[in-house]
Amino acid sequence: MLDSDAFGLLFHNARTFNNWQDRDVDTGLLKQAWDLTVLGPTSANCEPMRITFVKSDAAKKRLKPFLSEGNVDKTMNAPVTAIVAQDMEFYEKLPDLFPHTDARSWFAGKDDAIKATAFRNSSLQAGYFILALRGLGLDCGPMSGFDAAGLDGEFFAGTPLKTNLLINIGYGDRNKLPPRSPRLSFDQGAEII
Amino acid sequence: MLDSDAFGLLFHNARTFNNWQDRDVDTGLLKQAWDLTVLGPTSANCEPMRITFVKSDAAKKRLKPFLSEGNVDKTMNAPVTAIVAQDMEFYEKLPDLFPHTDARSWFAGKDDAIKATAFRNSSLQAGYFILALRGLGLDCGPMSGFDAAGLDGEFFAGTPLKTNLLINIGYGDRNKLPPRSPRLSFDQGAEII
Repeated sequence: MLDSDAFGLLFHNARTFNNWQDRDVDTGLLKQAWDLTVLGPTSANCEPMRITFVKSDAAKKRLKPFLSEGNVDKTMNAPVTAIVAQDMEFYEKLPDLFPHTDARSWFAGKDDAIKATAFRNSSLQAGYFILALRGLGLDCGPMSGFDAAGLDGEFFAGTPLKTNLLINIGYGDRNKLPPRSPRLSFDQGAEII
Repeated sequence: MLDSDAFGLLFHNARTFNNWQDRDVDTGLLKQAWDLTVLGPTSANCEPMRITFVKSDAAKKRLKPFLSEGNVDKTMNAPVTAIVAQDMEFYEKLPDLFPHTDARSWFAGKDDAIKATAFRNSSLQAGYFILALRGLGLDCGPMSGFDAAGLDGEFFAGTPLKTNLLINIGYGDRNKLPPRSPRLSFDQGAEII
């Protein structure tokens, strides 16, 4: 079982940040976060999540026009923004990722299964990724307020990738945090039968 | 930063289990896992995930007919199975969960926004939940192979809940684990621009 420091880092003391310390994010940490994330479970090990890390000024300029107004400043000020996408042809990799059976045939040509599996599993992976980043000492600011069609056209034209969500990454500025919002209790959201 | 034992518990040594030790799961741990999970970030703190923990023999019997054939034995043998659902009326709780603005109006009556937000965020929360369970020393077996319409009819008729995925929970039997499947490398799934 994790100790209270570890639960604190991942959950109790972790927050969504809109303001960032002036501190660069080491590329090696982003690679470590990827390598941890892909270990998490996905349906038939399909791993549909893809990430484009936007770090250079030139790439940030390409991202800016597609952000919702309230997301512009915090994103432009973040050291890195991850475009978390889903590969709508993820099943082409199943012969390598799930080699003991023909899992490709469960999806190829089946649009509803592809869409649900890509969205569910890339979102699950985004959950693992956020906690992996926190585990590595980084802070996150996930966002779903953006022009998805425009962003896909700018970054993923001619590819099977579709953006799922964005995550700002850096070292958060705790001086500017608002109080934490309330959470649903077990009795409000769960039952044991 | 987490130490290598913690990363091992959450990622490196954690596996998806199909076989379970004959060891009960304490209800208090399930409640702790809930309380950790809801701390994770969701869009406008919407927390659309709901969980029905299937633990009694009577409830397991109700679940069985809706499982894909390959999921029956491992689920019937698991100490607990979590039905992870999404509340399609999650926005009715936003006046409490995100009280500083009228976030309910971003969703009410907007079917596409409701569906995408419920699915994305309940899946993100499932990712947090799986790692919270592992952090508490439990093992998981997530599944998306089931008859969703049938399961919803049996467990959620007359409610706004829709099943997203199932997660078997218990203490896994490591003697029966197959080798781990390959994973996508950073260069296969990510880029820094």
